[in-house]
Amino acid sequence: MNIRNKGNGIFKRLIERYDTKLDKNGICGKRIAERLHTLSQIGLTADNGSNRPGYSEDEARAQELVSSWMKEAGMEVRRDGAGNLIGRLAGKRNFLPAIMSGSHVDTVPNGGHFDGTLGVITALEVVEAWKHEKYQPVHPLEIVVFADEEGSRFNGGLNGSEGMIGGRDIEAKKQLIDRDGYSFSEVLQQRDLSIDSYKNATRDMEEVALFIEVHIEQGKRLEKENLPCGIVTGIAGPCWLEITFYGEAGHAGNTPMNDRKDALVAASEFISKVNQLPGNINDTAVATIGKQLVEPNGVNVIPGKVTLYVDIRDIYEQTRDQLVEKVKHLAETIANDQQLKVAVTEKTKVKPVPIKKEMQDLLARSIKEQGIQPFYLPSGAGHDAMIIGEKVPIAMLFVRSENGISHNPQEWTNLADCVQAALVLKSFIEDLQTDWEDDNLS
Amino acid sequence: MNIRNKGNGIFKRLIERYDTKLDKNGICGKRIAERLHTLSQIGLTADNGSNRPGYSEDEARAQELVSSWMKEAGMEVRRDGAGNLIGRLAGKRNFLPAIMSGSHVDTVPNGGHFDGTLGVITALEVVEAWKHEKYQPVHPLEIVVFADEEGSRFNGGLNGSEGMIGGRDIEAKKQLIDRDGYSFSEVLQQRDLSIDSYKNATRDMEEVALFIEVHIEQGKRLEKENLPCGIVTGIAGPCWLEITFYGEAGHAGNTPMNDRKDALVAASEFISKVNQLPGNINDTAVATIGKQLVEPNGVNVIPGKVTLYVDIRDIYEQTRDQLVEKVKHLAETIANDQQLKVAVTEKTKVKPVPIKKEMQDLLARSIKEQGIQPFYLPSGAGHDAMIIGEKVPIAMLFVRSENGISHNPQEWTNLADCVQAALVLKSFIEDLQTDWEDDNLS
Repeated sequence: MNIRNKGNGIFKRLIERYDTKLDKNGICGKRIAERLHTLSQIGLTADNGSNRPGYSEDEARAQELVSSWMKEAGMEVRRDGAGNLIGRLAGKRNFLPAIMSGSHVDTVPNGGHFDGTLGVITALEVVEAWKHEKYQPVHPLEIVVFADEEGSRFNGGLNGSEGMIGGRDIEAKKQLIDRDGYSFSEVLQQRDLSIDSYKNATRDMEEVALFIEVHIEQGKRLEKENLPCGIVTGIAGPCWLEITFYGEAGHAGNTPMNDRKDALVAASEFISKVNQLPGNINDTAVATIGKQLVEPNGVNVIPGKVTLYVDIRDIYEQTRDQLVEKVKHLAETIANDQQLKVAVTEKTKVKPVPIKKEMQDLLARSIKEQGIQPFYLPSGAGHDAMIIGEKVPIAMLFVRSENGISHNPQEWTNLADCVQAALVLKSFIEDLQTDWEDDNLS
Repeated sequence: MNIRNKGNGIFKRLIERYDTKLDKNGICGKRIAERLHTLSQIGLTADNGSNRPGYSEDEARAQELVSSWMKEAGMEVRRDGAGNLIGRLAGKRNFLPAIMSGSHVDTVPNGGHFDGTLGVITALEVVEAWKHEKYQPVHPLEIVVFADEEGSRFNGGLNGSEGMIGGRDIEAKKQLIDRDGYSFSEVLQQRDLSIDSYKNATRDMEEVALFIEVHIEQGKRLEKENLPCGIVTGIAGPCWLEITFYGEAGHAGNTPMNDRKDALVAASEFISKVNQLPGNINDTAVATIGKQLVEPNGVNVIPGKVTLYVDIRDIYEQTRDQLVEKVKHLAETIANDQQLKVAVTEKTKVKPVPIKKEMQDLLARSIKEQGIQPFYLPSGAGHDAMIIGEKVPIAMLFVRSENGISHNPQEWTNLADCVQAALVLKSFIEDLQTDWEDDNLS
């Protein structure tokens, strides 16, 4: 079995469990499955995963493929100076601000075939359905394929969406070096872009009325609720704390229990207690210690130093920051109690982006129209919508992920759920047109 | 400053804080300092540490040096088939079982200048003192420099003492491979030894009346008690458990707190609670988690798997094993409570060697004779005495270690403490001669 044959499983697996009776309003499950499959062949790995780093040739090939679909669907296509692909379907009143949708086609190394791509393909599917229905929206529709969302190249993504809204620290980006030793500038040049073109990609966001992103959930909440999709209430901003406990290394045999300053015992009490904190703050708050380094890490040596990283998130800045303070305080209390030293450093602090109640309500309306119970859930992961949300109102629709698995070749979403998401997206955009027409008429 | 000059600091640092008025009964501080210094020059590292792996050329050179001192002191010297150097001072009644003392001159990589060497040099100092005093013991005295005690070559030491008492699994030793790819047999050949000579090194231990080892404490208890030396009550046998908690990896942002199976949270509760267990068992019991591996160890990924190692020791087998059972039970309880899986494997289980009360009493008598308060403490680390103790009665004298630091170039013991240890050892051996003469007379 060669890689290509393994890859062929994507279409087959999607379609064989799909009932074509679910096709509705011009949305076609088979086309979605074919497109997910065709995209999956670009950067396909031996594990049947996807490997399309941001600003790589494979990302460019994937964008090229989407570009051809956009053109076939009657969209005008351009690429901006940050490497974002933008397809525009003219509106009846084309001077009005555009409705924008989309996501990305880059992946983490050996990632899945739905993260990002599903948001691009469902948006395209709306245009395909309109073509079939001979429907033209009043407002123009733009579909954006954002470059380098995952950040697997520079250990920090969202470069495409950041380029679009501008205002970022370009000097800091110039310092970025990928694992092959190429700078941000050199990587841009590989794609016929440059620091200058990146700066010039900044767009007047007044031209955009709102942004809606369809994305797989990458969690299990929708699966638990037995729902195909749900309304994102906000995008949690992570705060990363680096915490180092300094104890005293010593011989595991020759140091009595009551004469130890064991950095791992302190770190362990800390981890055990951090786990209890988010529940006292907020249902949407989470705190995770995913990475821990023990020194010297010898079986018979009392750990003298433990460094760990706390990932703290909430969709509300106030409660996220409350949690950050509680975690810091806990580290200091435990260090004091155990007579150790501790150092706490904030490594990353991204503002959470709560999603406006009005936008959630609009999405809930479209969901109900499709006969689905509205279910509200936060996004723990960052998305392009988080960046675009700094400038324009956003909505975000999560689609059920099998077992919550993501960033992995096992990532899966059933075609029926993909179709539901496309239907919700279509009705969301159409309803907006009607609302605005009504507003104009009234 | 070249390496040799840095090394010269050993003698200087020892002697400059020493008051020669402490010289007594033929024991000479300057000679001890000179010998510690001269040995330290063999395998001296850039950090001013010692690097003499077992069965290395540097261990052989160190043994050769000790051999020359033994001969100068009037001892008969031989090397056995396991690579142990044995110097014998004839007794007045030379057919009687020998009193044996000694330790080793191999070191861990970049180790210190006292671990092992002090036991060899203090034993030699007793013979030097006797030569000065023209004293001949009734029983013969043997000083042994055991080969490869530290085990830095094969990740498991005590090969010299094991060769002497025999009965070990030679087939298992044949499987040993050092980091350069040499087998145990090849390494022996490099020292003109062989598997056959190793097997033939087994000695009739009826020829030995008892073994006494002087060794640095490698802990801080004597320093805390402000005592130069203390009586070892037993040598703790370690049991090493490998414990793996299997949780479920997941996205740190998209998995609510109440839907996690975080392997690190389970491991941390475990570590926190293991720390409380030894105190309920025994004062001499200890349990340490020194090594822990988190998977996948990414800041924003809930740990799916944590493997840790518990080092459990006590000088009594029964209480050590009680503690082992409690630790195993705790791991299972926590895994059950948190609905994770756990696997527990015993990796090492060495029998503790308690030291007989009579032997401790004999050592206490000699300590009191030197005007020192007897203080009793367990040895958490393994020593050649632990192996020899399987066949003959042993005594062990610990000497104060500065800050408890060992296996490190910073390892230090003041010369005054070295001299005290030599004085105690001398009086211990002399008193035994008298006891036995009295027994014979009575």
